[in-house]
Amino acid sequence: MISHAESVDISHLVRRYQTVRHQTEALCEPLCAEDQVIQSMPDASPARWHRAHTTWFFETFILRKFRPDYRPVNSAFEVLFNSYYNSVGEQFPRHQRGLLSRPTVEEVGHYRQSVDEQMMELLEQAGDDQELRSLLEVGLNHEQQHQELILTDIKHMLSCNPLFPVYRDRSVEKSAGEPAAQRWVQFDGGIVEMGASADGFRFDNELPRHRRLLEPFHLSSRLVTNSEYLEFMRDGGYERPEFWLSLGWSVCQQESWKAPLYWQSQGDGWSQFTLSGLRPLEPLEPVCHVSFFEADAFARWAGYRLPLEGEWETAVAAHVGDCPATRTGNFVESEAFHPQPAQRDSQSHLQQTYGDVWEWTASPYVAYPGYVTPPGAIGEYNGKFMCNQYVLRGGSCATPGSHIRGTYRNFFPPEARWQFSGIRLAK
Amino acid sequence: MISHAESVDISHLVRRYQTVRHQTEALCEPLCAEDQVIQSMPDASPARWHRAHTTWFFETFILRKFRPDYRPVNSAFEVLFNSYYNSVGEQFPRHQRGLLSRPTVEEVGHYRQSVDEQMMELLEQAGDDQELRSLLEVGLNHEQQHQELILTDIKHMLSCNPLFPVYRDRSVEKSAGEPAAQRWVQFDGGIVEMGASADGFRFDNELPRHRRLLEPFHLSSRLVTNSEYLEFMRDGGYERPEFWLSLGWSVCQQESWKAPLYWQSQGDGWSQFTLSGLRPLEPLEPVCHVSFFEADAFARWAGYRLPLEGEWETAVAAHVGDCPATRTGNFVESEAFHPQPAQRDSQSHLQQTYGDVWEWTASPYVAYPGYVTPPGAIGEYNGKFMCNQYVLRGGSCATPGSHIRGTYRNFFPPEARWQFSGIRLAK
Amino acid sequence: MISHAESVDISHLVRRYQTVRHQTEALCEPLCAEDQVIQSMPDASPARWHRAHTTWFFETFILRKFRPDYRPVNSAFEVLFNSYYNSVGEQFPRHQRGLLSRPTVEEVGHYRQSVDEQMMELLEQAGDDQELRSLLEVGLNHEQQHQELILTDIKHMLSCNPLFPVYRDRSVEKSAGEPAAQRWVQFDGGIVEMGASADGFRFDNELPRHRRLLEPFHLSSRLVTNSEYLEFMRDGGYERPEFWLSLGWSVCQQESWKAPLYWQSQGDGWSQFTLSGLRPLEPLEPVCHVSFFEADAFARWAGYRLPLEGEWETAVAAHVGDCPATRTGNFVESEAFHPQPAQRDSQSHLQQTYGDVWEWTASPYVAYPGYVTPPGAIGEYNGKFMCNQYVLRGGSCATPGSHIRGTYRNFFPPEARWQFSGIRLAK
Amino acid sequence: MISHAESVDISHLVRRYQTVRHQTEALCEPLCAEDQVIQSMPDASPARWHRAHTTWFFETFILRKFRPDYRPVNSAFEVLFNSYYNSVGEQFPRHQRGLLSRPTVEEVGHYRQSVDEQMMELLEQAGDDQELRSLLEVGLNHEQQHQELILTDIKHMLSCNPLFPVYRDRSVEKSAGEPAAQRWVQFDGGIVEMGASADGFRFDNELPRHRRLLEPFHLSSRLVTNSEYLEFMRDGGYERPEFWLSLGWSVCQQESWKAPLYWQSQGDGWSQFTLSGLRPLEPLEPVCHVSFFEADAFARWAGYRLPLEGEWETAVAAHVGDCPATRTGNFVESEAFHPQPAQRDSQSHLQQTYGDVWEWTASPYVAYPGYVTPPGAIGEYNGKFMCNQYVLRGGSCATPGSHIRGTYRNFFPPEARWQFSGIRLAK
Repeated sequence: MISHAESVDISHLVRRYQTVRHQTEALCEPLCAEDQVIQSMPDASPARWHRAHTTWFFETFILRKFRPDYRPVNSAFEVLFNSYYNSVGEQFPRHQRGLLSRPTVEEVGHYRQSVDEQMMELLEQAGDDQELRSLLEVGLNHEQQHQELILTDIKHMLSCNPLFPVYRDRSVEKSAGEPAAQRWVQFDGGIVEMGASADGFRFDNELPRHRRLLEPFHLSSRLVTNSEYLEFMRDGGYERPEFWLSLGWSVCQQESWKAPLYWQSQGDGWSQFTLSGLRPLEPLEPVCHVSFFEADAFARWAGYRLPLEGEWETAVAAHVGDCPATRTGNFVESEAFHPQPAQRDSQSHLQQTYGDVWEWTASPYVAYPGYVTPPGAIGEYNGKFMCNQYVLRGGSCATPGSHIRGTYRNFFPPEARWQFSGIRLAK
Repeated sequence: MISHAESVDISHLVRRYQTVRHQTEALCEPLCAEDQVIQSMPDASPARWHRAHTTWFFETFILRKFRPDYRPVNSAFEVLFNSYYNSVGEQFPRHQRGLLSRPTVEEVGHYRQSVDEQMMELLEQAGDDQELRSLLEVGLNHEQQHQELILTDIKHMLSCNPLFPVYRDRSVEKSAGEPAAQRWVQFDGGIVEMGASADGFRFDNELPRHRRLLEPFHLSSRLVTNSEYLEFMRDGGYERPEFWLSLGWSVCQQESWKAPLYWQSQGDGWSQFTLSGLRPLEPLEPVCHVSFFEADAFARWAGYRLPLEGEWETAVAAHVGDCPATRTGNFVESEAFHPQPAQRDSQSHLQQTYGDVWEWTASPYVAYPGYVTPPGAIGEYNGKFMCNQYVLRGGSCATPGSHIRGTYRNFFPPEARWQFSGIRLAK
Repeated sequence: MISHAESVDISHLVRRYQTVRHQTEALCEPLCAEDQVIQSMPDASPARWHRAHTTWFFETFILRKFRPDYRPVNSAFEVLFNSYYNSVGEQFPRHQRGLLSRPTVEEVGHYRQSVDEQMMELLEQAGDDQELRSLLEVGLNHEQQHQELILTDIKHMLSCNPLFPVYRDRSVEKSAGEPAAQRWVQFDGGIVEMGASADGFRFDNELPRHRRLLEPFHLSSRLVTNSEYLEFMRDGGYERPEFWLSLGWSVCQQESWKAPLYWQSQGDGWSQFTLSGLRPLEPLEPVCHVSFFEADAFARWAGYRLPLEGEWETAVAAHVGDCPATRTGNFVESEAFHPQPAQRDSQSHLQQTYGDVWEWTASPYVAYPGYVTPPGAIGEYNGKFMCNQYVLRGGSCATPGSHIRGTYRNFFPPEARWQFSGIRLAK
Repeated sequence: MISHAESVDISHLVRRYQTVRHQTEALCEPLCAEDQVIQSMPDASPARWHRAHTTWFFETFILRKFRPDYRPVNSAFEVLFNSYYNSVGEQFPRHQRGLLSRPTVEEVGHYRQSVDEQMMELLEQAGDDQELRSLLEVGLNHEQQHQELILTDIKHMLSCNPLFPVYRDRSVEKSAGEPAAQRWVQFDGGIVEMGASADGFRFDNELPRHRRLLEPFHLSSRLVTNSEYLEFMRDGGYERPEFWLSLGWSVCQQESWKAPLYWQSQGDGWSQFTLSGLRPLEPLEPVCHVSFFEADAFARWAGYRLPLEGEWETAVAAHVGDCPATRTGNFVESEAFHPQPAQRDSQSHLQQTYGDVWEWTASPYVAYPGYVTPPGAIGEYNGKFMCNQYVLRGGSCATPGSHIRGTYRNFFPPEARWQFSGIRLAK
């Protein structure tokens, strides 16, 4: 990934570092030590691991590089908290992260503190260095990505427990009355530009900015709601192979999918496990925790399709610009992580822009034309995952606000359901 | 898939039907009954099954439809030889095709004969019907696809046997002297048209013909040779994760890949299992039986990339036109199924066009913009497989000559190696 | 195993060799080439493999030893047809026996002929040699064991085919009216002798003859019938964990067992797949194709238990003597392989002795006190399998008559169901 | 299991309850919360689960029965902490015990306290009740079994961590000089009595006391040492199939066994992971953490065999009596859990009796003649596990001292290695 570090002053850098690092700790504050140890599936990681791995990132890519005399907190951490960087060295196996009771939660706290102190010192001494600033920006964006993963992984872990533990209470606000009417917003297509532009931070996979040819298309003004998704289910959505990709149908059968992840049938209705416990399904909220396969099957059932990532980016650029959207359910302020219904009386063409749930696109995750993998370990960040994954756009109620942007490319395998992922239709 | 049946006379139709059906039998002629029973892996099917399934296709989609009084040869075959058509009904599980000793090879022969006789009668009576013609064309192209699979599946099965049985002998012709020098052929890009045009048979996934924007690019004038691939191997190609997609590296480790499929290390050199038995590796032949992961890793090692399917189709249209290439190793005439070295003194810009080995592209297999799944069972032919597969272009020494065309989209998962698949570089 | 070769004349030996070898061929006579290739599960082997492996046994242990200039038919067979003799060398993996289409059925026939001719010559020249006679006896008994396996393996393979092919027709003889009343036969226990005595052939695992202390016990006069087993099923036998061993209950759940293997629910009744096709269940026949787990659960449900092997051997010795029983359903004469109902008016104390179905005992398969593994490859015959298996006694309708004896110890894992195995109760 | 409750006074009962319950807590005292959450393999359970399950046992089998108005601490615990009692109801899946972060360590502590208080009250009110006393005895013995499992499971979990955490330090006492010379102790055999006698607590599987016939035999005066086991390894023990049971050889190959569990090759020697961290291998300590397969292979390599459980019990009764042995490495007093070398100058015939490591016997775990499964849930304690397991005798350095006795039958599958299990030879 590449960062164009602007000429900001050092105190700003330091503040930003502290804010992001603090946010991680704040997210883990409601968790007891026991919560931070468990790996509930191979794709998820214990919260303690996320806290240590993001710290390892600064230690490995910045402190070791810019402080020749740096003495690592514990040399074993180099292997334990390396996620997948082959060029850095060996990695403790991903699916065994839940076998480690040590370092303890407290020890990981000390690890974070120690690295933070060293980073503060370094920033004050060498904060003008462009490469350092660039790597710092990567490290902070990396940590923000893991903040979202902390939430999705904790949610998955808690959901395995028949006691349905609450991560954070939220005051029950029943969503008001009528749904926002769905409208089709029309776009002309033609040769468009997409990808990140020169200024501001962006990951390597958003580059280069390039031209693309689009046919005319329509995007839905808002996301698919739980209530609309229930119609699909009632119409046999999970029993009729004609709506499904062949691979999706296999997974659906094998895993006995009958509803989105975290939905539970309860007598005459549905409940949904959330970070604030088990709650009745809200009909107007956007459907969430669906896989690409389900999103695609829903779209086919509805007679539409999922958007291409080029269409999505073009639409958002037209209606919102390339700067972060004002989300309805903001990350920092909100008490809970819960997708929000679309606003009824939105002035914008797109009633619901982004920031509630990630939106599956029809686009496999591939390199943009002219993409070049960055050299060194940082080059392992994005490019090597460009296979058998689909692009998601937007951002979710669990994504840090400053991390959301119109050119951002998130990606997951088509069967993944534990992210806050939903559906916007196109035609 | 869709067929534009031309106003050909009926005797031509009948002849074409007979030719294609006979070709299947001719391919199985060297096989004993024992050879036709075994399923050597879940992806492969016994030769007898291919012979029965292609027959089932005519029975199910044509005879049952156009002959109201048609009495199926054996009602159990409806399930036994249904490959994956959910809308036709239940299917005998794919991975259990090798559990069936009955119907015997002889009985399958009778099945084919019986359906052929009914088809002959039908064609003579109703050969003018446009829908019939259209479905017939689909059935024949479908059978040609299975002809190639018969060869790839038999090759895999025979390769499991330490006796290394020979499918068909070929006279040893050592490929002559020096390699064809590799050249880069340059293309301008811009807005191009791709996809099948109005006339001639094509599958639904080649439609619609549409516009695409390409950046300028270069394609290699010929395929990567065994000798070039050996350099990659000698340079640690299979031990260095930096060349590999993350998923590819996992597969490579898990399956202990050390060379292309069918290569065997023998003392100081390499041999290759072929349909004519175990033979010394020919350095100038195109490398074959590599997965997408290996093709992609090779390209990255070499400092290049795989072509996009749009680039490939554009290049071929420019140099060869949209009609089948004159292959160097022709399917019908040749005695063996073996990729051929590029011609040294080719007049064409592209020394080696297509028909030797399938060429992996960098393009995930997705629908063309505006693609519509055909209604009914025929709609299950292509669209539902558009996930986690990559497009291959060209055709191989095992592809029937009349089945090769510039707009054809073959597709396999990135780990598949048992097809005749190779590498052309782009930059 | 050990053979006490008697002073029989050579022509008798030759005749016996020919009879046993011919019997194998006779059993395969109803099979087409396709039937002889398939391995329907890892535990079963293709018929062709059994024919070749039994031949390999004579080649490896006799011809190679007694004919110094012996030239093997095909040196690759040494590996291909070695079942599990580590001391002989490498083995082709057991679960991959179904990947081999070659050598063909015809070639295996030639292999058998060639070895038979060499064996005939050898026997006429060296038939007096005691070690040769001893090994010959082992080889013939070994081949008889495989004759039973040919039948059980073919039955399993044919049962996988929805066409339900018939191995051999049998005339339908509905078993007559009333059941033989079950009686308890009483035995005193005390110190008994068991194990094979000095004369006649026996495997090493029947040795040494030794003393054992038995408590007084009762054995049922006949086997459990299908009709009695149906009562267990109707009483929730397959749904109530209280009858089952913990491991058995896991297997039962995992494999969704609802009835013995080969039983099929058909509308209002049950059918059973047999070597003569799918037939209505005969209520008075002994229940067959049950695992140890099912036999044990049935016994617990009934309020009884399975016999110890010492009890079984003692009972049979008392009532039948140590010589083969006159079976009700004889192997050589009968047209089909089907367990027979008990005789109503039997004069014997035990109405149904043995030879209909193998009888599960409660005894894990362990060495007799003082057992010594024979040296060399022959030592791999029995001892190394003494773990996690249970002893079955008696013999089945598929066991060659001359192979049945009171001291014989058959053994299979507790989950095995594809043998002709049934239940006799004890208390 | 059955308990003959003696006429002890109530304060004694209360004291014993408190002692055993306290011992569990004392064992978990060195563990942090993180240590108590992880399930490192399906066979092991988190320490917190052991603490809760043993509490559940008293709640379910005593409080619910004897206190009609008993209100369970949390009704969800009935399912969460039921190990395998089908007759009590549903069970949370065993292999998912590591998915639960709640109830927390602290909450489990409260659960224990609450049940303890209720138990105290109950004992003081109804401590004369014979059935209560009997169930209490079962509950305490049950808890003692789990005390050993807490240690074996913690050891396994810590061993997965490359930081090699220490459970409890021990002062390094290098075992002194020369090995205790191995001697053969001779026994006459004949008809012996075995099984538990009328007085004192014993589990149902130790009953009934019965007669058995033994041939004359010899037992080794001490256990096999690490140094002796190393000879086996150096002689190719793990590479030579001739020493192994067939099933054992498969497991050995599949799991790549090269040494006992927890041994690590380090440069020129071996280390062993222990509860006091990674330590150099002590040559004179008994070899530990071997499976039945390894024990059996070692014995065959050495030219001997494992003892029958009847032999073991007879020998111990003759030399030690039926009362607990004075262990060399005692559970309560010792600082660490580590097998002890045999005493050189022992006065006893058997230099090393029992209490250091469990001793694998050659006896599959089966019911004694006349064994009757107790009625109700308590009947699920032992009988249903009598399949594919082997009996171990003695007791280990991790077994509570008051839990060791000569008639005790421990049992594990033949591949289990994470218990403190070793080898005594017989001939």
